[in-house]
Amino acid sequence: MLNTFIIGASGYTGAELAKMVQAHPQLALKGLYVSANSLDAGKPISDLHGQLKGIVDLPLQPLADPGSVAQQADIVLLATAHEVSHDLAPTFLAEGCQVFDLSGAFRVKGDEFYTQYYGFSHQHSEWLDQAVYGLAEWNKAEIANAQLIAVPGCYPTASQLALKPLIEAGLIDGNQLPVINAVSGVSGAGRKATMTNSFCEVSLQAYGIFNHRHQPEIASHLGQDVIFTPHLGNFKRGILATITAKLADGVDSEQVAAAMACAYETQGEANAVRLLGEQAANLQSVVNTCFCDIGWKLHGGHIILTSAIDNLLKGASSQAMQCINIRNGFPQLTALV
Amino acid sequence: MLNTFIIGASGYTGAELAKMVQAHPQLALKGLYVSANSLDAGKPISDLHGQLKGIVDLPLQPLADPGSVAQQADIVLLATAHEVSHDLAPTFLAEGCQVFDLSGAFRVKGDEFYTQYYGFSHQHSEWLDQAVYGLAEWNKAEIANAQLIAVPGCYPTASQLALKPLIEAGLIDGNQLPVINAVSGVSGAGRKATMTNSFCEVSLQAYGIFNHRHQPEIASHLGQDVIFTPHLGNFKRGILATITAKLADGVDSEQVAAAMACAYETQGEANAVRLLGEQAANLQSVVNTCFCDIGWKLHGGHIILTSAIDNLLKGASSQAMQCINIRNGFPQLTALV
Amino acid sequence: MLNTFIIGASGYTGAELAKMVQAHPQLALKGLYVSANSLDAGKPISDLHGQLKGIVDLPLQPLADPGSVAQQADIVLLATAHEVSHDLAPTFLAEGCQVFDLSGAFRVKGDEFYTQYYGFSHQHSEWLDQAVYGLAEWNKAEIANAQLIAVPGCYPTASQLALKPLIEAGLIDGNQLPVINAVSGVSGAGRKATMTNSFCEVSLQAYGIFNHRHQPEIASHLGQDVIFTPHLGNFKRGILATITAKLADGVDSEQVAAAMACAYETQGEANAVRLLGEQAANLQSVVNTCFCDIGWKLHGGHIILTSAIDNLLKGASSQAMQCINIRNGFPQLTALV
Amino acid sequence: MLNTFIIGASGYTGAELAKMVQAHPQLALKGLYVSANSLDAGKPISDLHGQLKGIVDLPLQPLADPGSVAQQADIVLLATAHEVSHDLAPTFLAEGCQVFDLSGAFRVKGDEFYTQYYGFSHQHSEWLDQAVYGLAEWNKAEIANAQLIAVPGCYPTASQLALKPLIEAGLIDGNQLPVINAVSGVSGAGRKATMTNSFCEVSLQAYGIFNHRHQPEIASHLGQDVIFTPHLGNFKRGILATITAKLADGVDSEQVAAAMACAYETQGEANAVRLLGEQAANLQSVVNTCFCDIGWKLHGGHIILTSAIDNLLKGASSQAMQCINIRNGFPQLTALV
Repeated sequence: MLNTFIIGASGYTGAELAKMVQAHPQLALKGLYVSANSLDAGKPISDLHGQLKGIVDLPLQPLADPGSVAQQADIVLLATAHEVSHDLAPTFLAEGCQVFDLSGAFRVKGDEFYTQYYGFSHQHSEWLDQAVYGLAEWNKAEIANAQLIAVPGCYPTASQLALKPLIEAGLIDGNQLPVINAVSGVSGAGRKATMTNSFCEVSLQAYGIFNHRHQPEIASHLGQDVIFTPHLGNFKRGILATITAKLADGVDSEQVAAAMACAYETQGEANAVRLLGEQAANLQSVVNTCFCDIGWKLHGGHIILTSAIDNLLKGASSQAMQCINIRNGFPQLTALV
Repeated sequence: MLNTFIIGASGYTGAELAKMVQAHPQLALKGLYVSANSLDAGKPISDLHGQLKGIVDLPLQPLADPGSVAQQADIVLLATAHEVSHDLAPTFLAEGCQVFDLSGAFRVKGDEFYTQYYGFSHQHSEWLDQAVYGLAEWNKAEIANAQLIAVPGCYPTASQLALKPLIEAGLIDGNQLPVINAVSGVSGAGRKATMTNSFCEVSLQAYGIFNHRHQPEIASHLGQDVIFTPHLGNFKRGILATITAKLADGVDSEQVAAAMACAYETQGEANAVRLLGEQAANLQSVVNTCFCDIGWKLHGGHIILTSAIDNLLKGASSQAMQCINIRNGFPQLTALV
Repeated sequence: MLNTFIIGASGYTGAELAKMVQAHPQLALKGLYVSANSLDAGKPISDLHGQLKGIVDLPLQPLADPGSVAQQADIVLLATAHEVSHDLAPTFLAEGCQVFDLSGAFRVKGDEFYTQYYGFSHQHSEWLDQAVYGLAEWNKAEIANAQLIAVPGCYPTASQLALKPLIEAGLIDGNQLPVINAVSGVSGAGRKATMTNSFCEVSLQAYGIFNHRHQPEIASHLGQDVIFTPHLGNFKRGILATITAKLADGVDSEQVAAAMACAYETQGEANAVRLLGEQAANLQSVVNTCFCDIGWKLHGGHIILTSAIDNLLKGASSQAMQCINIRNGFPQLTALV
Repeated sequence: MLNTFIIGASGYTGAELAKMVQAHPQLALKGLYVSANSLDAGKPISDLHGQLKGIVDLPLQPLADPGSVAQQADIVLLATAHEVSHDLAPTFLAEGCQVFDLSGAFRVKGDEFYTQYYGFSHQHSEWLDQAVYGLAEWNKAEIANAQLIAVPGCYPTASQLALKPLIEAGLIDGNQLPVINAVSGVSGAGRKATMTNSFCEVSLQAYGIFNHRHQPEIASHLGQDVIFTPHLGNFKRGILATITAKLADGVDSEQVAAAMACAYETQGEANAVRLLGEQAANLQSVVNTCFCDIGWKLHGGHIILTSAIDNLLKGASSQAMQCINIRNGFPQLTALV
C-alpha cells in the first residue's frame, strides 16, 4: 500500500481525489491538508462535502509542517493554488515522494510563461524542466518514469485529446488557426464565494477572450497556435469543447478515423478516451465519469470536433489518478470505473 | 408626475423597482441611491443589471444627504437592509414623503419583536404604530391613507394570501397548526457573494427550521400560529408555498371557494391574485409576473393549498408598486401588467 | 458468481442497476431485456445511456421467452411497469430465481389496493402474501429469507426511513396526521417523452394532492395514516421529504435521538442511513450515492424531519442492490460505496 | 386600431406574440388560432401558458376557414410550421392583409433551397420574390413597404446582427470562413414532447453539424459563406453566438467600432441592438427582453464577437413586432420596452 496525502483537500477536486484514493486497492489515504490558516482546518472533509459522509470523514488538517508529511508520504497530490504548488512541490520532491500537481505551476516549460500568465516568477527551473505533462493517453512512458507530474487542466485536456491525433498525423492545415470554443461548468472556478459564481449571476457567457492562460498551454503542448475561447455555462460540472479546423489538402474521413483509432484504440491497455465517430459528444454522458468523449465530422475541407469531459475528473482528479496508476504500474483506470 | 427615488437600488428588488417606476405613466424616476460607501456607487444601474441597459441607465448615487433627497421626493422606495430602513425612514417621513419600505423594519407591531428576531432595538415606536402592512389585497383602505407602508416579504405574502381568506371566514381548525412548507429561489437571499448562494453549493434544503423570522410575521398578521418551514431551491426566482391545514368541522369545498372568491374576485377592481380552484399553482406561471396563484383541494377534513409568486415581484417590488398605486388612486395593477 | 438478469433495462433505474451489477464482485451480468416490441431492442444499453459506454455495452434484448431466461438466472431484477412485473414475476419465481421487483406490483398486501390505486386486478395473491417489502434497514431478516422482494419506491423510502423509528418507539401523536411534503427530480417519472417532462414545462409544483398511490403504501407500512403531498422539482435526480409531526406528550430530543440511533447506528453492520442530528438534509449530499440522510429538530411539541435520497438509487436501484446483498449474505453496501 | 390575428398561437412564440399584441396601443388582438385538428382547440391560451392568465384568456380556435379570418384581419402573424405558413400565407395576402411569417417558408430566395433544406417544393415563387426579410435593423425601408415579411429565426438573427456591419464595411477576410458557434435554449425546439426535449435527456451538445438549414440562410443574407454549429443548452430561453473571424488586412478596433456604431447607433430611431464594446454578451442580460447585445474583441488579425438574444423574442416574436411597428409607422420598440 502506498501512503497517499492530499494537500488542498477542501476544494471540489480535493474531494474527488479523496473518494478515489479511498476506493483504490493499492493506495492508503493517510492525510488531508489545507493551508495552515484555513477556516476549514479541523473539520472533517465530509462537513464541506456532504456526499463523502460515511465514506471519507478524515479531518482537514492545517499544513504546518510539510517536511513531516513528506517523510511519511509515498504519493502527494497537490490540489492547491498555483503559487502554493510552486512553493510546496520541492519539499515533497526532495524527500523522494511522487508528486502529482493539479495546479498550473509546472505545466509549461519556460520561466517567462509564469511571469506573463500567472503573475509570479518561477523559482524552480530544474523541477520545471523535469516535470512531465500528465496528459495520460499521450505521455505514458514519461509519466511512468517521472517524479513530478503536472496534471493538465480541464480546457487543455478536452482540447488536446481531440486535436492532438490530427496534428501529430499532419492532418490539420495550421495556417488557419483551429478555433476552440469551450463551455465549462461553474465548478471549474473552484469552491469559493464570488459574485461571478453567485447562483443568480451565472449566465452563459464567454470570458478571457484572447487572453486566457490555457491558450498558450494548449498551443505549447500541441505545437500549433490556436484560438481558444472559454465560456462559463449554467451547470455545475463538465466541459464541452467544439473545435473547428481546416484540414490539410485532400484529407478524408478515413484518415481522421485512422489517426483517432491509432491514438486511442490500438495502444493495448484501456484508456479514458471514447471515440464516438460522427456522433457529437454531450456533457451528460461524461459527467461523473473519467472519460473524454470525442466525435467529429468533415465537410468542405473542414473538420468539427466535439470533446466532452467532467472538468473535475478527466479535467483534474481522475486524470491525476490515471497518472498515479501509470506511474506505479497499475491498470490505468484502477479506481476509476 | 410624482417624483420617485429608490434607495438601495443595486439589489435585485431595486432593479425591478427601477424598471417599474420607469414604465409607470404617473411616476418620474428621479434618482437611484446606494449606501455612501458602496463599491457600486457611481456606476450606471445597468452595469450591474444588464437587462436594464437602454431602459434605465441612471447612476447609482451614494446616499450622502438623505435630507436633500427627502426634499425633492414625493415617493421614496426603501429596498435597503432592515436596520438601514429603520434609520432612514423617519428622515423621509418628516419631510412628508410617502415611504414604501421593502425591509422588515416596520412590518410587525411591538418593539420586542425586533430585539428578538432582527437583533436591534427599535427606536421609532410611533412610526411603527402608524405603519400600515402593505398586503395589497387586504389592506387597501389603510394603504390609501398611510404615509408609511411596510411591504410584506416573499414568504409572508405567499402564505397569507392563501390562508387569510379561510381564517377570516373561520374555516380553519386552528388547534392543529397549519403547516406551511415553502421553497424560494436563490434571489431571495439578495445580491451578494456567499458560499450558501454559490452556484455549486445551492441544493434543495430546508433552513431556519422553527426559527425563521417570517414565522412570527405570518402568525401575527394572520392571528393564527403556524408552523413555517422555508426551503432554498435551485432556481433563481419564485416561491411555492404548500400549506396543509385542518378544516373546522363540516367545512366543505363550496365554503372554501366562496371565501376565496369573496376575498379576491368580488372586490370590484382587478388585483394580483388569480384563483386556480383545484388546479395546483406552479412557479413558471407566476415568475416574471405580479400575480399570486392560489389552488386548493379538500379531503378528509383537511385542505392543501398551493400558492405561488415571483419572490422579487409580488414578494417585493410589484407589491410595493401595487401599494403606490393604491395610495395614489391609480388602478392597482398600473405598470404591472 | 450469481447469474443476474435485468428486465426493463432501458430506463433510468435499469441503467443504474446495470452499472452496479457490473461492479459487484459476486454477480455476473448475464443479460439485459426490454419488452419484445420496444424500439430500443437490439441497441447496446450505452446507446441510450451514454455514461455506460465502455463500462456496460451489452445489447437490450427483446424478452421473447421469459421462461428461458428464468432457467439461466439466479437473480432477476424487474425494472418494469407495474402490470409487467405482476405478469412476469411468477415465471421467474417458479424456476426458483430470486426476484427483486422495483415496481409497485407486490408492495402492499391486499388485492383491493391494486384495483383502487393501480387499476388492475391482482392475480397472484399467494406471491403477494409471500413478498417481502425491501425497506433494507427495517426488514433485514425477512429479506434474507425471501424469494420475492418488493423494493419500495422513492417517496415511500424517504418518508418511512425518517418516520418509522419514531412511530415504532411510540414518539408520535398519531391523532394529528404527519404531514409529508416531498419534492422529486424529474427522473422519477421515468425515461419517456411527455409534455409534463418536457424541459420548458417543468416547474416546481405539487401533484397528486390527496390521491397519490404512495400515500397508502406509506400509511400501510408505517401503520399510521399520513398526509402526503408530492411535488415535481426542476432537477434531474433526488428527493427531499420534509415531514412535520406532532410528538406524543413529553417527548424530548434525547428520546428522538435514541430512537434514530437504535434504528440505524447500533445494528452492527453499516447501512445506508446517515443521521445528521439537527442539521437539515440536502439533495446534493445524497445525489449519486446510496445514502438516505435524515435530520430533525423539535420545538413546541412538534418535530420537523428532513430526509433526502437519490430517487434512482436509494429510491430504487441501490436499495434493490442492498436487498440482493442481504439476501445473499454479502455486506449490505457491496458495490454501493 | 389594427385588427390582429395570430395563427399557431399555442406555441411559445405564439404566447409571446399574444402578450405583445395585447400590450400594443394601436393593435387589437382579435383572434388566436390553432390547426383545425389540434387537441388544444377550444382551450383558453392561458390554460397552456399559465403566465397569460388574467392577461390574455382568449380561446385557441380551430382554423377551419382561413378566408373568413383574412377578411377581418389587418395583420396576420403566422407562428406556424414551415409548410403550414407556405400554404396559408397566400390566402391572407390575397385579401390584402399584412402577413408576418415567423416560419422559414419565405426567408430565402430560390425554390431549390426549400427542396433541399425544408423537404418541400415551394409553390409560391411570386410571393417568395416579394417577401422582405424582416431583419429589422437592416431592412427598415423594405419592411415599411412590404406586404409579406419573413421574420428571421433565432440563430440567423444573433449571427447576422453581429457579422453584417463588418461584412458590409469590408472588414472581414472572407477567405477564411467565419466560425459561428451558437448555443440555444430548449424552447427553440418548440412546445412539444420529444425525447430530445425531455428534461433528463437535455445536455449541452452540438447538433446539425455542417447541415443545419440556418447555415445557408445566414450565408445567403450575409453574402458570405460561414461555418455554423448550433448547440442545445440546458436552459429554457436565449441564444449566445460566439463568432470567430479573420479580419481583412490592417483592420483595427476603431474601424470595427465605427462600423458597429454606424449600423446601430447613428440611425436616428432607437432599435433593438445594444453595443457592448469589449464586454462580452451574456444570456441573462437579454432573456425576457427584445434586445440583441453585441460585444467584440480583436487580437492578432482576428475578431471574436459575442451576440446574445432571447430566442423567443428578438429571435422570433419581438422581432415580428418590430417589423409590425416599422411597417405601420409606429416607433420601432412600441410594446417592447
